[in-house]
Amino acid sequence: MLPTFDDVCAASERIAPYVQRTPVMTSATLDREVDGRVFFKCENLQKVGAFKARGALNTVLSLSNGEAEGGVITHSSGNHAAALAYAAAIRGIPCTVVMPDDAPAVKVTAVRGYGADIVFCKQNERETVCHREMQIRGSTLVHPFDDSRVVAGQGTAALELFEEVPDLDVVIAPIGGGGLLSGTTVAAAAVRPGIRVVGAEPEAVDDAYRSLQTGVRQPRVPNPTTWADGLLTGVGEIPFEILTAAGTEIVTVTERALLEAALFHLERMKLVVEPSGAAGLAAVRAIADEVRGLQVGVIISGGNTDFRWLEAARTQ
Amino acid sequence: MLPTFDDVCAASERIAPYVQRTPVMTSATLDREVDGRVFFKCENLQKVGAFKARGALNTVLSLSNGEAEGGVITHSSGNHAAALAYAAAIRGIPCTVVMPDDAPAVKVTAVRGYGADIVFCKQNERETVCHREMQIRGSTLVHPFDDSRVVAGQGTAALELFEEVPDLDVVIAPIGGGGLLSGTTVAAAAVRPGIRVVGAEPEAVDDAYRSLQTGVRQPRVPNPTTWADGLLTGVGEIPFEILTAAGTEIVTVTERALLEAALFHLERMKLVVEPSGAAGLAAVRAIADEVRGLQVGVIISGGNTDFRWLEAARTQ
Repeated sequence: MLPTFDDVCAASERIAPYVQRTPVMTSATLDREVDGRVFFKCENLQKVGAFKARGALNTVLSLSNGEAEGGVITHSSGNHAAALAYAAAIRGIPCTVVMPDDAPAVKVTAVRGYGADIVFCKQNERETVCHREMQIRGSTLVHPFDDSRVVAGQGTAALELFEEVPDLDVVIAPIGGGGLLSGTTVAAAAVRPGIRVVGAEPEAVDDAYRSLQTGVRQPRVPNPTTWADGLLTGVGEIPFEILTAAGTEIVTVTERALLEAALFHLERMKLVVEPSGAAGLAAVRAIADEVRGLQVGVIISGGNTDFRWLEAARTQ
Repeated sequence: MLPTFDDVCAASERIAPYVQRTPVMTSATLDREVDGRVFFKCENLQKVGAFKARGALNTVLSLSNGEAEGGVITHSSGNHAAALAYAAAIRGIPCTVVMPDDAPAVKVTAVRGYGADIVFCKQNERETVCHREMQIRGSTLVHPFDDSRVVAGQGTAALELFEEVPDLDVVIAPIGGGGLLSGTTVAAAAVRPGIRVVGAEPEAVDDAYRSLQTGVRQPRVPNPTTWADGLLTGVGEIPFEILTAAGTEIVTVTERALLEAALFHLERMKLVVEPSGAAGLAAVRAIADEVRGLQVGVIISGGNTDFRWLEAARTQ
């Protein structure tokens, strides 16, 4: 079942006590640059540092008591893992995260900080180990994006953005698995029919772009070289179906554009944004000719970064 | 004439169209750490990246037409210079900034970006050159802090903070020249009499601390070693008079505490804060025992930084 606008509204009410109503920010410098008005929904300032808190909370708070008892589990090691651990802690149920041996210490610390159990394994055994742990613990798998409850939760960011800036002409969100973009699409179609919805995807991992061009879901790009470590995954089935039906378009952006966008957020807007999260600004600039005089909403997806990109961004 | 609360209110109205009403942010992690509630007024997200926009705008917008005609001038090269250039551009009058030859390129670019004239000179000739240019151009000198109009303008940040969080028990602001802290003191005394007002000052430049302890204004510390490049200056006459009369106290913080605070803002709160601007958080931690269970307002003063401190902050 695909999520509906009612699901997004219900999610918004369900998660409200536990998420930040993140601020919407603007930059006069950028508005001059693109000759339009750009409104950034700052999900980098969200709990756990990313919009992922929304979908994870909506899912965990939707579980029946029977499901909840066995806890939740995931084998994502990125922002979704921290978000799920946070959501499980809110509901007071166990959370297990299956992580590769070589996961960055900062991610391990974040997940552990929210009280989750971590099970380490080899990178290529994550799904097997996750399946085994599910059986042993009786846990419910919460997929990072291919789940209607997750998609509905992610749609609440756009819902808040539309409440704050009702007359947007364009709304842009980064796309990896597609949870955020498809949730945004569902919200946009209901609140502001006819609005242009755009996914921002790095050229280096352009499977969503090719999927929507061909109408056939393409596999994720193997071993890509990109700074957008949050957008490596291929587009999910549920998101793909929503995006295809709505005619959502994808704009691809270069690595240089990603870095320049992250640097602009950091130096000019004083916001910490991970390169994946800066894809929206990069896309605004890529289609600057088409947004002149318009009001553009952009979702900044997250701010969890070790700043390794900073030096590269400053080297032109 | 010292600024009054009415001056702060008038300033707030005067500058409102040209400043950001900056957001107030919290951190659940920090609240747990100090067992209280801390509210950060984010002046790093202010126009020109610092609260200085407030005082400069209030002064420039208060000038008579006769004064305005000759433009404004300053020999500060930090955030005040950019703020004055911004304010002059808003009013459409000339602005001159006298800067040392070796001023960082990023500061020169910022000031030039707002359309100001820059006059370069040797570091130790700044005041002389500034005086000469004043005469030639018929410009009005706008001091970065020792000016009642500037102090009244800086007080508007605290005014907004009190509007948003009326029941604060403590309010903390960094102190360099004292414009922000004395403006905060004026606002606090009127809006919330009896509130504890605290200045946060690096140990390495503790002239304000010693000035208030002895009751005699002490000279600035010569050639200090500190990351707080925005707080090097000595406390001004007008600020000193206000702080002394109100019994405002100063808490000094170590360099390590400054760096840890700036890193916390960056990594945990996703906010770019210059080390000077993080002095408030460092002070909260320094007096953590005394703020348990209380509501504490902290003004983050600015976010203009080249991140040179980041490596030092990560090296324990």
